Amino acid sequence: MNNFSFELIREDTETDARAGLIHTPHGDVPTPVFAPVGTQATVKTLTPADLQALQASLILSNTYHLYLRPGPDLIAEFGGLHQFMGWPGPILTDSGGFQVFSLKGLREVDEDGVTFRSHLDGATHRFTPEKVIAIQEQLGADIIMAFDECAEPDDYDYNMAALGRTHHWAERCLLAHKRADQALYGIIQGGIFSDLRLKSAEFLINLDFPGYAIGGLSVGESKTEMHTILEILHPILPRHKPRYLMGVGSPEDLFECVARGVDQFDCVLPTRVARNGAVFTNQGRINLRNAKYARRHDPIEIGCTCYTCSHFSMAYLRHLIKANEILGLHLATIHNVHFMLETMRCIRHSILEGTFTAYKEEFLSHYQPVPKAMQGNG
Amino acid sequence: MNNFSFELIREDTETDARAGLIHTPHGDVPTPVFAPVGTQATVKTLTPADLQALQASLILSNTYHLYLRPGPDLIAEFGGLHQFMGWPGPILTDSGGFQVFSLKGLREVDEDGVTFRSHLDGATHRFTPEKVIAIQEQLGADIIMAFDECAEPDDYDYNMAALGRTHHWAERCLLAHKRADQALYGIIQGGIFSDLRLKSAEFLINLDFPGYAIGGLSVGESKTEMHTILEILHPILPRHKPRYLMGVGSPEDLFECVARGVDQFDCVLPTRVARNGAVFTNQGRINLRNAKYARRHDPIEIGCTCYTCSHFSMAYLRHLIKANEILGLHLATIHNVHFMLETMRCIRHSILEGTFTAYKEEFLSHYQPVPKAMQGNG
Repeated sequence: MNNFSFELIREDTETDARAGLIHTPHGDVPTPVFAPVGTQATVKTLTPADLQALQASLILSNTYHLYLRPGPDLIAEFGGLHQFMGWPGPILTDSGGFQVFSLKGLREVDEDGVTFRSHLDGATHRFTPEKVIAIQEQLGADIIMAFDECAEPDDYDYNMAALGRTHHWAERCLLAHKRADQALYGIIQGGIFSDLRLKSAEFLINLDFPGYAIGGLSVGESKTEMHTILEILHPILPRHKPRYLMGVGSPEDLFECVARGVDQFDCVLPTRVARNGAVFTNQGRINLRNAKYARRHDPIEIGCTCYTCSHFSMAYLRHLIKANEILGLHLATIHNVHFMLETMRCIRHSILEGTFTAYKEEFLSHYQPVPKAMQGNG
Repeated sequence: MNNFSFELIREDTETDARAGLIHTPHGDVPTPVFAPVGTQATVKTLTPADLQALQASLILSNTYHLYLRPGPDLIAEFGGLHQFMGWPGPILTDSGGFQVFSLKGLREVDEDGVTFRSHLDGATHRFTPEKVIAIQEQLGADIIMAFDECAEPDDYDYNMAALGRTHHWAERCLLAHKRADQALYGIIQGGIFSDLRLKSAEFLINLDFPGYAIGGLSVGESKTEMHTILEILHPILPRHKPRYLMGVGSPEDLFECVARGVDQFDCVLPTRVARNGAVFTNQGRINLRNAKYARRHDPIEIGCTCYTCSHFSMAYLRHLIKANEILGLHLATIHNVHFMLETMRCIRHSILEGTFTAYKEEFLSHYQPVPKAMQGNG
């Protein structure tokens, strides 16, 4: 079996951008990479054949959701998540920490773990580091995550206390993890506080994880605060290990965070906004529900090679979405996932060619980001 | 342009079953044929590529729905329905009569046409024979329908009065229809009453339509009543013209009605029940939500060649449906449409081979129909 390894292929000379290759038992992942999210063992609306046509090289699935439904025992009985969902390529599972700590009022943390109530039926469950590793071993993803505590980004005292638990849990996760065919990443926490982030990185680097995730960002802090943390971490993170910025991001985030040394991303954005009729273009995000697209013969993006843009007008897509047709959500999802994956492929290509800065400037010169206040509106 | 024609290839010797070929400007339709329904310019959850992979040869779309949204002017501006929805194969549009007469309390009929209120926004609209033909010419389907009045099947006086209008409207439709690349079918009405059905068939046969639809069945009458009407009509309908039984049917209906001379079918059943988690098997319809499928490693039907059965376990499909994932509806739809189309292909093959009766008996010996009282439950 071809176990996990990371190959650093080229470092940009003008920025901290890196191009590499993650080898996994289920195939190679060219980095930087954007992973579409398949929360419930499906990237919403897409078949595995669709994902292959989109050339997705890595997808993410959520431990918390799969633990509750259909349960890790059932997935293990089917040989793991790859077989269960029919996806032959690399998979990453998160630790469930982010979801559990999002259950405000439904969870209680102690030094040993977290007791929480299911958002589905209110039943009580408990996650410990050992439990979370056992679940992820049952799911069988190629890349798995240590159990961590996600604190509010701007509460120093809480972040300091949570960091102690996160670090202790990271040690326990390492001890508990037995499957040699899975790479267990440590998760750096510490909110928006440079000293805590550095302390967290140093502690986890000493534990020698095969990869490092940066958690607790893109949860309400400013873009500048997020960028500052990345800039602080870059020089101390091991050069020959992948860095994964969890839950990020938008098209503009890919450029800014790749420029600050990030190799891996995941985000629900392209799939979630598609289900509200919003699609990415090189000029920014547009919503197909808008009346001005009702008679448009052109595709979402002229020149886009995705199935949606190759076959359908904006007028047809708008009709489907206005008529609440599932096909509209499917076609918008295909386009958005293609947009993210293709943009990332272009980013990687530009790093390899030594033209990343020029490509970044060119892209950001015409791409209009969604104002922060409107980001939830799809 | 290859205009419409019907080629009768073989008549069964033991039943009234027929195998033929409908030629249309957008391709040939082997008959008997089952047409999946694409009400709002999409067969729900399926892309045109999916329909091509399923080898669908004819799809239906609804004049009433497309008239209201996005409107025939817009579709005409895009070159017609084929271009608008990206479906290159044959399309049939209904006349809107069935939908308009289903709008109980929202419509008023007179000798000239029907005034009705939109189910979307309550706005008042009017359909006349000329209007319905004009809309269908704008949509540009290969096979279009005369405007008819659908009466309650067991109300003799109403059926007799409605029949007068339907016949007068059929004449007006013929006069109004100009596009030589479309085949306009007449619709035989008359409820469950043999004398009215015969009278309707005779009247419409004299008008020399290129095909005949049988409307107002499968709307609450018994199977026996439906079969009786078909048996009465068979001997008088022109041998060399296609017969289309509208809105039918279930897998067992295909066999029983093909045996009574029907060449064309359409029904929302396979797509509608799929969205409730119900799928066809050779033993009958099952619902994947049932707990007994939670750990089933086998596909819906062993040996089924559809994408769903080739790739996914019942356990995975059940998980998707229980988790309200769109992919579950999509995969169930693919299987159900495949089941109907493949069953019809086998029926046609058996007619050509002279083994239809044996195939019918074999299929019906293991296929358990859904009891009438439960047919709405998916």
